Amino acid sequence: MTAAEVDQFICDGLPAYAESGCMVETVTPETTTVRMRYRDDQLRPGGSLSGPTMMALADTAMYAIILATLGPIGLAVTQNLNINFLQKPKPADLLAEARFLRLGRRAAVIDVQIRSAADASLVAQATGTYAIPSGAPRADLAGASA
Amino acid sequence: MTAAEVDQFICDGLPAYAESGCMVETVTPETTTVRMRYRDDQLRPGGSLSGPTMMALADTAMYAIILATLGPIGLAVTQNLNINFLQKPKPADLLAEARFLRLGRRAAVIDVQIRSAADASLVAQATGTYAIPSGAPRADLAGASA
Amino acid sequence: MTAAEVDQFICDGLPAYAESGCMVETVTPETTTVRMRYRDDQLRPGGSLSGPTMMALADTAMYAIILATLGPIGLAVTQNLNINFLQKPKPADLLAEARFLRLGRRAAVIDVQIRSAADASLVAQATGTYAIPSGAPRADLAGASA
Amino acid sequence: MTAAEVDQFICDGLPAYAESGCMVETVTPETTTVRMRYRDDQLRPGGSLSGPTMMALADTAMYAIILATLGPIGLAVTQNLNINFLQKPKPADLLAEARFLRLGRRAAVIDVQIRSAADASLVAQATGTYAIPSGAPRADLAGASA
Repeated sequence: MTAAEVDQFICDGLPAYAESGCMVETVTPETTTVRMRYRDDQLRPGGSLSGPTMMALADTAMYAIILATLGPIGLAVTQNLNINFLQKPKPADLLAEARFLRLGRRAAVIDVQIRSAADASLVAQATGTYAIPSGAPRADLAGASA
Repeated sequence: MTAAEVDQFICDGLPAYAESGCMVETVTPETTTVRMRYRDDQLRPGGSLSGPTMMALADTAMYAIILATLGPIGLAVTQNLNINFLQKPKPADLLAEARFLRLGRRAAVIDVQIRSAADASLVAQATGTYAIPSGAPRADLAGASA
Repeated sequence: MTAAEVDQFICDGLPAYAESGCMVETVTPETTTVRMRYRDDQLRPGGSLSGPTMMALADTAMYAIILATLGPIGLAVTQNLNINFLQKPKPADLLAEARFLRLGRRAAVIDVQIRSAADASLVAQATGTYAIPSGAPRADLAGASA
Repeated sequence: MTAAEVDQFICDGLPAYAESGCMVETVTPETTTVRMRYRDDQLRPGGSLSGPTMMALADTAMYAIILATLGPIGLAVTQNLNINFLQKPKPADLLAEARFLRLGRRAAVIDVQIRSAADASLVAQATGTYAIPSGAPRADLAGASA
Protein backbone atom coordinates (compact mmCIF):
# COMPACT_ATOMS: atom_id res chain seq x y z
CA MET A 1 0.00 0.00 0.00
CA THR A 2 1.15 3.55 -0.64
CA ALA A 3 1.31 6.22 2.05
CA ALA A 4 -1.99 7.70 0.81
CA GLU A 5 -3.70 4.30 0.81
CA VAL A 6 -2.51 3.50 4.34
CA ASP A 7 -3.66 6.93 5.48
CA GLN A 8 -7.10 6.47 3.95
CA PHE A 9 -7.46 2.96 5.38
CA ILE A 10 -6.73 4.14 8.93
CA CYS A 11 -9.05 7.14 8.45
CA ASP A 12 -11.91 4.93 7.31
CA GLY A 13 -11.56 2.52 10.20
CA LEU A 14 -10.87 4.83 13.10
CA PRO A 15 -12.88 8.08 13.34
CA ALA A 16 -10.61 9.52 16.05
CA TYR A 17 -7.63 9.34 13.67
CA ALA A 18 -9.14 11.85 11.29
CA GLU A 19 -9.20 14.43 14.08
CA SER A 20 -5.80 13.57 15.49
CA GLY A 21 -3.77 15.66 13.08
CA CYS A 22 -1.80 12.57 11.99
CA MET A 23 -0.93 11.78 8.38
CA VAL A 24 1.02 8.87 6.93
CA GLU A 25 3.73 10.72 5.08
CA THR A 26 6.17 8.27 3.53
CA VAL A 27 6.37 4.53 3.01
CA THR A 28 9.63 2.87 1.96
CA PRO A 29 10.59 -0.81 2.06
CA GLU A 30 12.35 -0.20 5.39
CA THR A 31 10.38 2.50 7.20
CA THR A 32 7.03 4.25 7.46
CA THR A 33 6.82 7.85 8.62
CA VAL A 34 3.78 9.49 10.21
CA ARG A 35 3.57 13.24 10.78
CA MET A 36 1.55 14.72 13.62
CA ARG A 37 0.66 18.32 13.06
CA TYR A 38 1.21 20.62 16.00
CA ARG A 39 -1.96 21.67 17.85
CA ASP A 40 -2.18 23.88 20.92
CA ASP A 41 -4.88 21.83 22.60
CA GLN A 42 -2.61 18.84 23.07
CA LEU A 43 -0.32 20.80 25.35
CA ARG A 44 -0.09 19.79 28.97
CA PRO A 45 0.96 21.94 31.94
CA GLY A 46 4.46 23.25 31.33
CA GLY A 47 3.78 23.71 27.62
CA SER A 48 4.83 20.26 26.50
CA LEU A 49 2.94 17.93 24.19
CA SER A 50 1.16 15.37 26.31
CA GLY A 51 2.44 11.82 26.71
CA PRO A 52 -0.77 10.28 25.32
CA THR A 53 -0.40 12.39 22.18
CA MET A 54 3.00 10.82 21.55
CA MET A 55 1.80 7.34 22.52
CA ALA A 56 -1.02 7.63 19.99
CA LEU A 57 1.47 8.78 17.37
CA ALA A 58 3.81 5.85 18.09
CA ASP A 59 0.94 3.37 17.91
CA THR A 60 -0.29 4.89 14.64
CA ALA A 61 3.17 4.61 13.11
CA MET A 62 3.32 0.93 14.11
CA TYR A 63 -0.09 0.24 12.61
CA ALA A 64 0.90 2.13 9.46
CA ILE A 65 4.02 0.04 8.82
CA ILE A 66 1.99 -3.15 9.36
CA LEU A 67 -0.54 -1.99 6.77
CA ALA A 68 2.12 -0.71 4.37
CA THR A 69 3.89 -4.08 4.48
CA LEU A 70 1.11 -6.64 4.90
CA GLY A 71 -1.77 -4.81 3.23
CA PRO A 72 -5.20 -3.89 4.62
CA ILE A 73 -5.51 -6.13 7.68
CA GLY A 74 -7.74 -4.19 10.00
CA LEU A 75 -7.55 -6.63 12.85
CA ALA A 76 -3.88 -6.42 13.72
CA VAL A 77 -3.79 -5.41 17.38
CA THR A 78 -1.19 -3.98 19.70
CA GLN A 79 -0.16 -6.45 22.39
CA ASN A 80 2.52 -4.43 24.14
CA LEU A 81 3.93 -0.93 23.84
CA ASN A 82 6.88 0.50 25.73
CA ILE A 83 7.70 4.18 25.32
CA ASN A 84 10.52 6.34 26.66
CA PHE A 85 9.97 10.09 26.72
CA LEU A 86 13.37 11.65 26.09
CA GLN A 87 12.87 15.39 26.00
CA LYS A 88 10.13 17.98 26.06
CA PRO A 89 9.07 18.45 22.44
CA LYS A 90 9.16 21.90 20.93
CA PRO A 91 5.91 23.47 19.68
CA ALA A 92 6.26 21.95 16.22
CA ASP A 93 5.12 18.97 14.17
CA LEU A 94 6.38 15.55 15.20
CA LEU A 95 7.65 12.86 12.83
CA ALA A 96 7.40 9.21 13.87
CA GLU A 97 9.52 6.75 11.93
CA ALA A 98 8.67 3.06 12.35
CA ARG A 99 10.77 0.08 11.29
CA PHE A 100 10.48 -3.62 11.94
CA LEU A 101 12.78 -5.25 14.46
CA ARG A 102 11.10 -8.53 13.57
CA LEU A 103 8.28 -9.47 11.25
CA GLY A 104 7.13 -13.00 11.98
CA ARG A 105 4.05 -14.92 11.02
CA ARG A 106 2.14 -14.32 14.23
CA ALA A 107 3.70 -11.15 15.60
CA ALA A 108 5.70 -8.12 14.59
CA VAL A 109 8.07 -6.17 16.82
CA ILE A 110 8.43 -2.57 15.75
CA ASP A 111 10.73 0.29 16.77
CA VAL A 112 9.49 3.88 16.53
CA GLN A 113 11.58 6.99 16.88
CA ILE A 114 9.70 10.27 17.30
CA ARG A 115 11.60 13.41 16.31
CA SER A 116 10.72 17.10 16.28
CA ALA A 117 10.18 18.37 12.74
CA ALA A 118 11.77 21.62 13.93
CA ASP A 119 15.30 20.26 14.48
CA ALA A 120 15.16 16.45 14.12
CA SER A 121 16.00 15.98 17.80
CA LEU A 122 14.85 12.68 19.28
CA VAL A 123 11.80 13.27 21.49
CA ALA A 124 10.59 9.76 22.26
CA GLN A 125 11.36 6.14 21.42
CA ALA A 126 8.93 3.24 21.52
CA THR A 127 8.94 -0.47 20.85
CA GLY A 128 5.78 -2.45 20.42
CA THR A 129 4.48 -5.88 19.58
CA TYR A 130 1.58 -6.32 17.17
CA ALA A 131 -0.35 -9.58 16.84
CA ILE A 132 -0.95 -10.46 13.20
CA PRO A 133 -4.21 -12.30 12.48
CA SER A 134 -3.70 -15.72 10.93
CA GLY A 135 -4.44 -15.75 7.24
CA ALA A 136 -3.02 -12.26 6.70
CA PRO A 137 -1.28 -11.86 3.35
CA ARG A 138 2.47 -12.21 3.63
CA ALA A 139 4.69 -9.53 2.22
CA ASP A 140 8.14 -10.33 0.93
CA LEU A 141 10.04 -10.22 4.18
CA ALA A 142 13.55 -10.38 2.79
CA GLY A 143 15.69 -8.17 4.95
CA ALA A 144 12.77 -7.09 7.12
CA SER A 145 14.55 -7.92 10.35
CA ALA A 146 18.00 -6.80 9.23
CA MET B 1 -6.33 16.42 47.12
CA THR B 2 -9.77 14.88 46.76
CA ALA B 3 -10.96 13.10 43.63
CA ALA B 4 -12.91 16.20 42.55
CA GLU B 5 -9.91 18.47 43.11
CA VAL B 6 -7.59 16.21 41.14
CA ASP B 7 -10.16 16.03 38.34
CA GLN B 8 -10.51 19.81 38.21
CA PHE B 9 -6.74 20.32 38.27
CA ILE B 10 -6.19 18.02 35.29
CA CYS B 11 -9.12 19.62 33.44
CA ASP B 12 -7.71 23.12 33.97
CA GLY B 13 -4.27 22.19 32.73
CA LEU B 14 -5.04 19.91 29.81
CA PRO B 15 -7.89 20.90 27.45
CA ALA B 16 -7.91 17.51 25.73
CA TYR B 17 -8.73 15.82 29.04
CA ALA B 18 -12.08 17.57 29.28
CA GLU B 19 -13.14 15.95 26.01
CA SER B 20 -11.65 12.54 26.75
CA GLY B 21 -14.57 11.23 28.79
CA CYS B 22 -12.25 10.58 31.75
CA MET B 23 -13.14 11.37 35.34
CA VAL B 24 -11.14 10.86 38.53
CA GLU B 25 -13.57 8.75 40.50
CA THR B 26 -12.01 7.73 43.81
CA VAL B 27 -8.90 8.57 45.80
CA THR B 28 -7.82 6.44 48.74
CA PRO B 29 -4.47 6.34 50.53
CA GLU B 30 -3.48 3.32 48.41
CA THR B 31 -5.14 3.78 45.02
CA THR B 32 -6.66 6.28 42.63
CA THR B 33 -9.35 5.22 40.18
CA VAL B 34 -10.18 6.96 36.91
CA ARG B 35 -13.28 6.10 34.89
CA MET B 36 -13.36 6.46 31.10
CA ARG B 37 -16.88 6.68 29.73
CA TYR B 38 -17.58 4.54 26.70
CA ARG B 39 -17.77 6.41 23.40
CA ASP B 40 -18.35 4.91 19.97
CA ASP B 41 -15.84 7.11 18.20
CA GLN B 42 -12.90 5.55 20.05
CA LEU B 43 -13.60 2.19 18.48
CA ARG B 44 -11.06 0.76 16.06
CA PRO B 45 -11.63 -1.80 13.30
CA GLY B 46 -13.00 -4.96 14.87
CA GLY B 47 -15.08 -3.01 17.35
CA SER B 48 -12.47 -2.74 20.08
CA LEU B 49 -11.46 0.37 21.99
CA SER B 50 -8.24 1.68 20.49
CA GLY B 51 -4.88 1.17 22.15
CA PRO B 52 -4.18 4.91 22.42
CA THR B 53 -7.47 5.35 24.28
CA MET B 54 -6.29 2.92 26.92
CA MET B 55 -2.76 4.35 26.98
CA ALA B 56 -4.21 7.80 27.62
CA LEU B 57 -6.37 6.37 30.39
CA ALA B 58 -3.37 4.63 32.01
CA ASP B 59 -1.30 7.82 31.84
CA THR B 60 -4.14 9.86 33.32
CA ALA B 61 -4.52 7.43 36.22
CA MET B 62 -0.78 7.70 36.92
CA TYR B 63 -0.89 11.49 36.85
CA ALA B 64 -3.98 11.44 39.09
CA ILE B 65 -2.33 9.36 41.83
CA ILE B 66 0.71 11.65 41.75
CA LEU B 67 -1.54 14.68 42.21
CA ALA B 68 -3.70 12.98 44.84
CA THR B 69 -0.61 12.07 46.87
CA LEU B 70 1.82 14.95 46.29
CA GLY B 71 -0.62 17.78 45.62
CA PRO B 72 -0.91 20.10 42.62
CA ILE B 73 2.45 19.65 40.89
CA GLY B 74 1.71 20.29 37.26
CA LEU B 75 5.18 19.56 36.04
CA ALA B 76 5.46 15.89 36.88
CA VAL B 77 6.19 14.17 33.60
CA THR B 78 6.01 10.61 32.36
CA GLN B 79 9.45 9.17 31.61
CA ASN B 80 8.49 5.66 30.61
CA LEU B 81 5.26 3.75 30.12
CA ASN B 82 4.90 0.06 29.37
CA ILE B 83 1.45 -1.31 28.63
CA ASN B 84 0.17 -4.83 27.96
CA PHE B 85 -3.17 -5.18 26.20
CA LEU B 86 -4.77 -8.30 27.61
CA GLN B 87 -8.16 -8.65 25.99
CA LYS B 88 -10.50 -6.80 23.71
CA PRO B 89 -12.57 -4.53 25.94
CA LYS B 90 -16.33 -4.78 25.85
CA PRO B 91 -18.37 -1.74 24.77
CA ALA B 92 -18.56 -0.36 28.30
CA ASP B 93 -16.84 2.12 30.60
CA LEU B 94 -13.29 1.34 31.69
CA LEU B 95 -11.92 1.73 35.21
CA ALA B 96 -8.20 2.36 35.69
CA GLU B 97 -6.82 1.76 39.17
CA ALA B 98 -3.36 3.15 39.91
CA ARG B 99 -1.12 2.33 42.86
CA PHE B 100 2.48 3.16 43.69
CA LEU B 101 5.11 0.47 43.33
CA ARG B 102 7.60 3.04 44.57
CA LEU B 103 7.34 6.67 45.55
CA GLY B 104 10.79 8.18 45.81
CA ARG B 105 12.04 11.74 45.96
CA ARG B 106 12.88 12.05 42.28
CA ALA B 107 10.70 9.42 40.64
CA ALA B 108 7.58 7.37 41.17
CA VAL B 109 6.89 3.95 39.68
CA ILE B 110 3.19 3.26 39.29
CA ASP B 111 1.15 0.19 38.37
CA VAL B 112 -2.20 0.62 36.61
CA GLN B 113 -4.78 -2.08 36.04
CA ILE B 114 -7.56 -1.29 33.57
CA ARG B 115 -10.77 -3.27 33.98
CA SER B 116 -14.09 -3.28 32.16
CA ALA B 117 -16.82 -1.69 34.26
CA ALA B 118 -19.16 -4.31 32.75
CA ASP B 119 -17.63 -7.36 34.42
CA ALA B 120 -14.40 -6.27 36.14
CA SER B 121 -12.30 -8.36 33.76
CA LEU B 122 -8.71 -7.18 33.34
CA VAL B 123 -8.32 -5.45 29.96
CA ALA B 124 -4.85 -3.92 30.19
CA GLN B 125 -1.98 -3.48 32.63
CA ALA B 126 0.60 -0.72 32.61
CA THR B 127 3.61 0.35 34.60
CA GLY B 128 5.12 3.78 34.29
CA THR B 129 7.79 6.03 35.74
CA TYR B 130 7.04 9.65 36.55
CA ALA B 131 9.76 12.21 37.21
CA ILE B 132 8.91 14.37 40.20
CA PRO B 133 10.16 17.95 40.05
CA SER B 134 12.55 18.84 42.86
CA GLY B 135 10.89 20.93 45.52
CA ALA B 136 7.58 19.11 45.23
CA PRO B 137 5.76 18.74 48.54
CA ARG B 138 6.30 15.33 50.12
CA ALA B 139 3.34 13.31 51.21
CA ASP B 140 3.58 10.93 54.12
CA LEU B 141 5.00 7.95 52.31
CA ALA B 142 4.66 5.39 55.07
CA GLY B 143 3.63 2.18 53.43
CA ALA B 144 3.57 3.68 49.97
CA SER B 145 5.82 1.03 48.52
CA ALA B 146 4.39 -1.86 50.50
CA MET C 1 2.97 -29.92 38.54
CA THR C 2 4.04 -29.48 42.16
CA ALA C 3 6.70 -27.00 43.25
CA ALA C 4 9.27 -29.82 43.50
CA GLU C 5 8.39 -31.14 40.04
CA VAL C 6 8.66 -27.70 38.46
CA ASP C 7 11.99 -27.17 40.21
CA GLN C 8 13.35 -30.50 38.97
CA PHE C 9 12.13 -29.87 35.42
CA ILE C 10 13.91 -26.50 35.22
CA CYS C 11 17.05 -28.01 36.78
CA ASP C 12 17.14 -30.83 34.23
CA GLY C 13 16.75 -28.51 31.27
CA LEU C 14 18.92 -25.59 32.26
CA PRO C 15 22.30 -26.33 33.85
CA ALA C 16 22.83 -22.68 34.87
CA TYR C 17 19.68 -22.81 37.01
CA ALA C 18 21.17 -25.39 39.33
CA GLU C 19 23.98 -23.00 40.20
CA SER C 20 21.79 -19.90 40.43
CA GLY C 21 20.61 -20.44 43.98
CA CYS C 22 16.98 -20.39 42.82
CA MET C 23 14.34 -22.80 44.08
CA VAL C 24 10.64 -23.06 43.21
CA GLU C 25 9.13 -22.74 46.66
CA THR C 26 5.34 -22.75 46.40
CA VAL C 27 2.74 -23.36 43.73
CA THR C 28 -0.90 -22.39 44.27
CA PRO C 29 -3.70 -22.03 41.71
CA GLU C 30 -3.04 -18.27 41.58
CA THR C 31 0.68 -17.79 42.14
CA THR C 32 4.07 -19.44 41.96
CA THR C 33 6.89 -18.32 44.25
CA VAL C 34 10.60 -18.74 43.56
CA ARG C 35 13.23 -18.08 46.22
CA MET C 36 16.73 -16.91 45.33
CA ARG C 37 19.25 -17.57 48.04
CA TYR C 38 21.55 -14.71 48.92
CA ARG C 39 25.10 -15.06 47.60
CA ASP C 40 27.91 -12.56 47.96
CA ASP C 41 29.25 -13.03 44.46
CA GLN C 42 26.14 -11.54 42.87
CA LEU C 43 26.81 -8.19 44.50
CA ARG C 44 27.64 -5.24 42.29
CA PRO C 45 29.51 -2.06 43.22
CA GLY C 46 27.69 -0.36 46.07
CA GLY C 47 26.80 -3.67 47.67
CA SER C 48 23.53 -4.23 45.84
CA LEU C 49 22.39 -7.39 44.09
CA SER C 50 22.95 -6.96 40.38
CA GLY C 51 20.14 -6.19 37.96
CA PRO C 52 20.77 -9.34 35.89
CA THR C 53 20.40 -11.44 39.05
CA MET C 54 16.91 -10.05 39.56
CA MET C 55 16.04 -10.28 35.86
CA ALA C 56 17.00 -13.96 35.90
CA LEU C 57 14.87 -14.47 39.00
CA ALA C 58 11.86 -12.73 37.38
CA ASP C 59 12.23 -14.81 34.23
CA THR C 60 12.52 -18.02 36.24
CA ALA C 61 9.37 -17.20 38.19
CA MET C 62 7.50 -16.62 34.90
CA TYR C 63 8.73 -19.91 33.48
CA ALA C 64 7.81 -21.68 36.72
CA ILE C 65 4.17 -20.50 36.71
CA ILE C 66 3.87 -21.55 33.05
CA LEU C 67 5.13 -25.03 33.94
CA ALA C 68 3.05 -25.25 37.11
CA THR C 69 -0.10 -24.39 35.16
CA LEU C 70 0.41 -25.95 31.73
CA GLY C 71 2.70 -28.84 32.61
CA PRO C 72 6.17 -29.73 31.29
CA ILE C 73 6.40 -27.66 28.09
CA GLY C 74 10.07 -26.95 27.69
CA LEU C 75 9.72 -24.80 24.63
CA ALA C 76 7.76 -21.89 26.07
CA VAL C 77 9.93 -18.84 25.39
CA THR C 78 10.05 -15.29 26.70
CA GLN C 79 9.06 -12.73 24.06
CA ASN C 80 9.24 -9.57 26.11
CA LEU C 81 10.25 -8.66 29.64
CA ASN C 82 9.95 -5.27 31.29
CA ILE C 83 11.44 -4.80 34.76
CA ASN C 84 11.43 -1.87 37.16
CA PHE C 85 14.08 -1.83 39.88
CA LEU C 86 12.46 -0.17 42.87
CA GLN C 87 14.99 -0.23 45.68
CA LYS C 88 18.39 -1.59 46.52
CA PRO C 89 17.80 -5.06 47.92
CA LYS C 90 19.13 -5.90 51.35
CA PRO C 91 21.70 -8.71 51.71
CA ALA C 92 19.02 -11.37 52.08
CA ASP C 93 17.11 -13.96 50.07
CA LEU C 94 14.67 -12.68 47.46
CA LEU C 95 11.17 -14.04 46.85
CA ALA C 96 9.62 -13.68 43.39
CA GLU C 97 5.86 -14.17 43.17
CA ALA C 98 4.41 -14.66 39.69
CA ARG C 99 0.75 -14.49 38.67
CA PHE C 100 -1.00 -14.46 35.32
CA LEU C 101 -2.40 -11.21 33.98
CA ARG C 102 -3.60 -13.20 31.01
CA LEU C 103 -3.31 -16.83 29.98
CA GLY C 104 -4.32 -17.24 26.36
CA ARG C 105 -3.83 -20.02 23.87
CA ARG C 106 -0.78 -18.55 22.18
CA ALA C 107 0.67 -16.25 24.81
CA ALA C 108 0.69 -15.59 28.54
CA VAL C 109 1.26 -12.23 30.20
CA ILE C 110 2.69 -12.56 33.68
CA ASP C 111 3.31 -10.15 36.55
CA VAL C 112 6.19 -10.78 38.96
CA GLN C 113 6.80 -8.97 42.22
CA ILE C 114 10.21 -9.48 43.84
CA ARG C 115 10.40 -8.87 47.58
CA SER C 116 13.17 -9.10 50.14
CA ALA C 117 12.74 -12.12 52.39
CA ALA C 118 14.13 -9.95 55.19
CA ASP C 119 11.22 -7.51 55.43
CA ALA C 120 8.84 -8.21 52.48
CA SER C 121 9.63 -4.81 50.94
CA LEU C 122 9.09 -4.62 47.19
CA VAL C 123 12.45 -4.63 45.41
CA ALA C 124 11.48 -5.04 41.75
CA GLN C 125 8.43 -5.57 39.55
CA ALA C 126 8.37 -7.18 36.14
CA THR C 127 5.85 -8.02 33.46
CA GLY C 128 6.59 -10.42 30.66
CA THR C 129 5.05 -12.17 27.71
CA TYR C 130 5.67 -15.86 27.09
CA ALA C 131 4.88 -17.55 23.78
CA ILE C 132 3.16 -20.88 24.31
CA PRO C 133 3.94 -23.57 21.74
CA SER C 134 0.87 -24.77 19.88
CA GLY C 135 -0.25 -28.17 21.07
CA ALA C 136 0.67 -27.46 24.66
CA PRO C 137 -1.69 -29.08 27.15
CA ARG C 138 -4.34 -26.66 28.37
CA ALA C 139 -4.90 -26.15 32.05
CA ASP C 140 -8.27 -25.20 33.40
CA LEU C 141 -8.06 -21.47 32.89
CA ALA C 142 -11.22 -20.45 34.73
CA GLY C 143 -10.39 -17.30 36.60
CA ALA C 144 -6.79 -17.27 35.41
CA SER C 145 -7.03 -13.73 34.10
CA ALA C 146 -9.21 -12.44 36.93
CA MET D 1 37.75 5.19 29.28
CA THR D 2 38.98 2.72 26.70
CA ALA D 3 37.32 -0.63 26.05
CA ALA D 4 40.00 -2.40 28.12
CA GLU D 5 39.62 0.04 31.01
CA VAL D 6 35.83 -0.33 31.05
CA ASP D 7 36.23 -4.11 30.93
CA GLN D 8 38.66 -4.11 33.83
CA PHE D 9 36.47 -1.75 35.89
CA ILE D 10 33.43 -4.00 35.54
CA CYS D 11 35.55 -7.09 36.29
CA ASP D 12 36.92 -5.54 39.47
CA GLY D 13 33.49 -4.54 40.76
CA LEU D 14 31.38 -7.52 39.83
CA PRO D 15 32.86 -11.00 40.35
CA ALA D 16 30.07 -12.67 38.34
CA TYR D 17 31.07 -10.66 35.27
CA ALA D 18 34.45 -12.34 35.06
CA GLU D 19 32.76 -15.70 34.69
CA SER D 20 30.05 -14.52 32.32
CA GLY D 21 32.11 -14.75 29.15
CA CYS D 22 31.46 -11.06 28.41
CA MET D 23 34.13 -8.66 27.17
CA VAL D 24 33.88 -4.98 26.30
CA GLU D 25 35.12 -5.04 22.74
CA THR D 26 34.92 -1.57 21.23
CA VAL D 27 34.21 1.94 22.45
CA THR D 28 33.50 4.76 20.00
CA PRO D 29 31.97 8.18 20.64
CA GLU D 30 28.58 6.82 19.55
CA THR D 31 28.46 3.18 20.61
CA THR D 32 29.92 0.57 22.93
CA THR D 33 30.01 -3.09 21.92
CA VAL D 34 30.17 -6.03 24.31
CA ARG D 35 30.84 -9.57 23.11
CA MET D 36 29.46 -12.59 24.92
CA ARG D 37 31.34 -15.77 24.15
CA TYR D 38 29.21 -18.78 23.38
CA ARG D 39 29.00 -21.36 26.15
CA ASP D 40 27.02 -24.57 26.14
CA ASP D 41 25.89 -24.31 29.74
CA GLN D 42 23.76 -21.23 29.05
CA LEU D 43 21.53 -23.18 26.71
CA ARG D 44 17.90 -23.71 27.69
CA PRO D 45 15.55 -26.47 26.53
CA GLY D 46 15.26 -26.30 22.75
CA GLY D 47 18.92 -25.40 22.37
CA SER D 48 18.52 -21.64 22.60
CA LEU D 49 20.53 -19.25 24.71
CA SER D 50 18.51 -18.38 27.80
CA GLY D 51 16.67 -15.09 28.16
CA PRO D 52 18.56 -14.16 31.34
CA THR D 53 21.84 -14.59 29.47
CA MET D 54 20.75 -11.99 26.95
CA MET D 55 19.29 -9.72 29.62
CA ALA D 56 22.61 -9.78 31.45
CA LEU D 57 24.41 -8.99 28.22
CA ALA D 58 22.07 -6.05 27.47
CA ASP D 59 22.52 -4.68 30.98
CA THR D 60 26.29 -5.03 30.76
CA ALA D 61 26.35 -3.16 27.45
CA MET D 62 24.33 -0.33 29.02
CA TYR D 63 26.65 -0.14 32.02
CA ALA D 64 29.67 -0.21 29.69
CA ILE D 65 28.53 2.77 27.62
CA ILE D 66 27.81 4.72 30.81
CA LEU D 67 31.35 4.02 32.04
CA ALA D 68 32.93 4.66 28.64
CA THR D 69 31.21 8.05 28.45
CA LEU D 70 31.07 9.29 32.05
CA GLY D 71 34.11 7.54 33.50
CA PRO D 72 34.37 5.16 36.47
CA ILE D 73 31.08 5.76 38.32
CA GLY D 74 30.39 2.48 40.03
CA LEU D 75 27.07 3.53 41.46
CA ALA D 76 25.05 4.06 38.29
CA VAL D 77 22.08 1.73 38.62
CA THR D 78 19.50 0.33 36.23
CA GLN D 79 16.02 1.68 36.90
CA ASN D 80 14.12 0.02 34.09
CA LEU D 81 14.92 -2.47 31.36
CA ASN D 82 12.61 -3.61 28.57
CA ILE D 83 13.79 -6.37 26.27
CA ASN D 84 12.24 -7.97 23.18
CA PHE D 85 13.50 -11.40 22.17
CA LEU D 86 13.32 -11.49 18.39
CA GLN D 87 14.68 -14.84 17.30
CA LYS D 88 16.35 -17.91 18.69
CA PRO D 89 20.08 -17.16 18.67
CA LYS D 90 22.41 -19.52 16.85
CA PRO D 91 25.11 -21.34 18.84
CA ALA D 92 27.61 -18.52 18.37
CA ASP D 93 28.97 -15.45 20.14
CA LEU D 94 26.61 -12.53 20.64
CA LEU D 95 27.47 -8.86 20.08
CA ALA D 96 25.55 -6.20 22.01
CA GLU D 97 25.81 -2.65 20.69
CA ALA D 98 24.65 0.13 23.03
CA ARG D 99 23.96 3.74 22.12
CA PHE D 100 22.40 6.62 24.03
CA LEU D 101 18.87 7.67 23.19
CA ARG D 102 19.27 10.37 25.81
CA LEU D 103 22.06 11.30 28.18
CA GLY D 104 20.77 13.70 30.79
CA ARG D 105 22.15 14.87 34.10
CA ARG D 106 20.15 12.49 36.26
CA ALA D 107 19.31 9.65 33.90
CA ALA D 108 20.40 8.03 30.66
CA VAL D 109 18.15 6.13 28.27
CA ILE D 110 20.04 3.55 26.25
CA ASP D 111 19.17 1.34 23.28
CA VAL D 112 20.90 -2.04 22.88
CA GLN D 113 20.74 -4.26 19.84
CA ILE D 114 22.01 -7.81 20.27
CA ARG D 115 23.15 -9.59 17.11
CA SER D 116 24.57 -13.02 16.40
CA ALA D 117 28.27 -12.86 15.59
CA ALA D 118 27.61 -15.69 13.12
CA ASP D 119 25.49 -13.70 10.66
CA ALA D 120 24.74 -10.29 12.23
CA SER D 121 21.02 -11.12 12.48
CA LEU D 122 19.14 -9.20 15.17
CA VAL D 123 18.44 -11.50 18.11
CA ALA D 124 17.13 -9.11 20.78
CA GLN D 125 16.55 -5.42 21.37
CA ALA D 126 16.46 -3.66 24.72
CA THR D 127 15.96 -0.17 26.07
CA GLY D 128 16.86 0.78 29.58
CA THR D 129 17.05 3.70 31.95
CA TYR D 130 20.08 4.21 34.17
CA ALA D 131 20.09 6.59 37.13
CA ILE D 132 23.28 8.63 37.23
CA PRO D 133 24.53 9.57 40.69
CA SER D 134 24.72 13.31 41.28
CA GLY D 135 28.25 14.60 41.13
CA ALA D 136 29.26 12.20 38.36
CA PRO D 137 31.76 13.65 35.92
CA ARG D 138 30.10 14.97 32.77
CA ALA D 139 31.37 13.87 29.41
CA ASP D 140 31.11 16.06 26.37
CA LEU D 141 27.57 15.25 25.35
CA ALA D 142 27.51 16.98 21.99
CA GLY D 143 25.53 14.78 19.69
CA ALA D 144 24.94 12.15 22.34
CA SER D 145 21.20 12.14 21.83
CA ALA D 146 21.28 12.65 18.08
